[in-house]
Amino acid sequence: MKITCEKNSLLKGINTVMKAVSSKTTMPILECILIDASADEIKFTANDMELGIETKVEGTILEKGIVALEARIFSDIIRKLPDNIVSISTENNLQTSIKCENTDLTIMGRDGEDFSYLPFIEREEGISISQFTLKDLIRQTIFSIAQNESNKMMTGELFEINNDTLRVVSLDGHRISIRKIELKKSFGEKKIIVPGKTLIEISKILTGGTEDMVDIYFTENHILFEFEQTIVVSRLIEGNYFRVDQMLSNDYNTKIKVNKKNLLDCIDRATLMVKEGDKKPIILNISENRMEVKITSQIGTMNEFIDIDLEGNDIKIGFNPKFLIDALRVIDEETVDIYFMNPKAPCFIRDEQESYIYLILPVNFLDAA
Amino acid sequence: MKITCEKNSLLKGINTVMKAVSSKTTMPILECILIDASADEIKFTANDMELGIETKVEGTILEKGIVALEARIFSDIIRKLPDNIVSISTENNLQTSIKCENTDLTIMGRDGEDFSYLPFIEREEGISISQFTLKDLIRQTIFSIAQNESNKMMTGELFEINNDTLRVVSLDGHRISIRKIELKKSFGEKKIIVPGKTLIEISKILTGGTEDMVDIYFTENHILFEFEQTIVVSRLIEGNYFRVDQMLSNDYNTKIKVNKKNLLDCIDRATLMVKEGDKKPIILNISENRMEVKITSQIGTMNEFIDIDLEGNDIKIGFNPKFLIDALRVIDEETVDIYFMNPKAPCFIRDEQESYIYLILPVNFLDAA
Repeated sequence: MKITCEKNSLLKGINTVMKAVSSKTTMPILECILIDASADEIKFTANDMELGIETKVEGTILEKGIVALEARIFSDIIRKLPDNIVSISTENNLQTSIKCENTDLTIMGRDGEDFSYLPFIEREEGISISQFTLKDLIRQTIFSIAQNESNKMMTGELFEINNDTLRVVSLDGHRISIRKIELKKSFGEKKIIVPGKTLIEISKILTGGTEDMVDIYFTENHILFEFEQTIVVSRLIEGNYFRVDQMLSNDYNTKIKVNKKNLLDCIDRATLMVKEGDKKPIILNISENRMEVKITSQIGTMNEFIDIDLEGNDIKIGFNPKFLIDALRVIDEETVDIYFMNPKAPCFIRDEQESYIYLILPVNFLDAA
Repeated sequence: MKITCEKNSLLKGINTVMKAVSSKTTMPILECILIDASADEIKFTANDMELGIETKVEGTILEKGIVALEARIFSDIIRKLPDNIVSISTENNLQTSIKCENTDLTIMGRDGEDFSYLPFIEREEGISISQFTLKDLIRQTIFSIAQNESNKMMTGELFEINNDTLRVVSLDGHRISIRKIELKKSFGEKKIIVPGKTLIEISKILTGGTEDMVDIYFTENHILFEFEQTIVVSRLIEGNYFRVDQMLSNDYNTKIKVNKKNLLDCIDRATLMVKEGDKKPIILNISENRMEVKITSQIGTMNEFIDIDLEGNDIKIGFNPKFLIDALRVIDEETVDIYFMNPKAPCFIRDEQESYIYLILPVNFLDAA
């Protein structure tokens, strides 16, 4: 195989597929990027068997062929080359020479035939949303997937399509995050669980443009994202997701409207009093159009007053401050509405249209304090 | 004690003294910042017993007093407050309340009397150089102090004043770095060894302005830097420094002139072939106005040609690439001159005026390869 490409084209291709390179594996081939120049175009592929990414790279094929190169060293070499044309050529013994200007670096490749190609996905009916929207959907829900694998389903997000709405849901047993958008075309019904890791990685390679579209296709076991010169294929998580609607409610006894930044900054300060691993709750004491935010720990105490618009009853309720912070951080609005029922029922942060809903379980602060 | 200050004044003060807060200590008082408002000005002090920093903070004293606050939490609290006036007040039981706008954070302080004040340094004859120059002197030599403490003297830098020149020297057994500047005023003779840690920390708080001066004073056991509202006092390392001049030589059989960036980029690429902890040398093969740079390791090989101006004999010589990189990185000139004697003698990278000299010992590449 012999190809020539601009350094920057190579780098873009490497950075795109790098997200699917396996970092801890006993199979060295999974730590590689496959360079496939066996047909008329140059394609880079990485595949950790859960997630696979393939992207086209601009360049010239001088001699057709394929080779797999260890991703880390290949990436480092290309990054450190001068900004110029790079030639990559592989001998029959897989020795691969990377040349640019006066420099020539040689590393051993691996047989491209050993590489696991991406599963073939039939692109039938799909949905199309902007990269910006997909990135936003992920950012605004991904924080509440479960971190440990003990419940596999909680490590993914529900993508639920119902005619012309797409609802994305994540939950970890203490909180639920929901984002809802309208689709341009009606689709039918579909419920799938996408691994959190897939969403985190794809989020990193989306440009985030509002005009750049992503097409999304589904099969029984896979989801495929297609955009620009790239396709991302991921396995799905099997099973029926939690019945989230049963946990939601629009009833409330207390509703407050509060400046988001003020509340976020306040709770952020409160966390200074919480040592890593400590589970001190933050106490919200709501009455008469102001909210007292309070925390007491071994380190010290914080006490702060925030102006609010109050509708309904006074309430005193405790929360894990991190959960409030996580939700407030991803909400783009200047003010937020928070709904409470009683000190033992979850609170809801949501907008009127329910384009977002964050449910957070309270902490029994009488026990905890 | 009760004081009020702008948040940003507090933050500036904290950031300045923070560099002398002890991070690993069994004495909790050393992890504190002392707030001293016992006289007519507010002073922050930190002191890890090797290095002490004291700085004046703008503000108003409402009630005189002193208190020591745990530096980490004090710094975090101030950083997260709104940009506004902050009031700090300490009760008799040392409970300290930090208030700003609607927030009130309370932490326990420690008795300021337990704090170790900085040693008193008589400011007699001193030298005065710009912050820019001091920062540069440190940056251009600090990388070649020894990292481990087995030879205490090697962990410091020699500051050698000889009438109107200041020479700063560091060495670690494999290389020597020397920077020389002229002083505006003649001083006499002085040789002291300043701990590397002191120089690293002071470098971080110098603004680096060419017009902002630092005054430097010496006593038997201490060095004192004074600039703006801040003084930094450090213990010196005892002993007679290595006799560096014996190791220097102006003889050479080969002299090359080379573009610094080209050489640096080339060696940087070569290090891709060196695994952490591996000691593969880089081989320079100089002949006929070009230099072949070569490295071979388990990972692969690199081979590159660089244009040079050659004066004298051909030579083939091996080096630890890191040592070449460290020196080249801190040289500001576009081209550098490198002098060689033979493959077993050190090379010298220096300018005509010898304002900098970097001596690097070669590696026996026949054994190593």
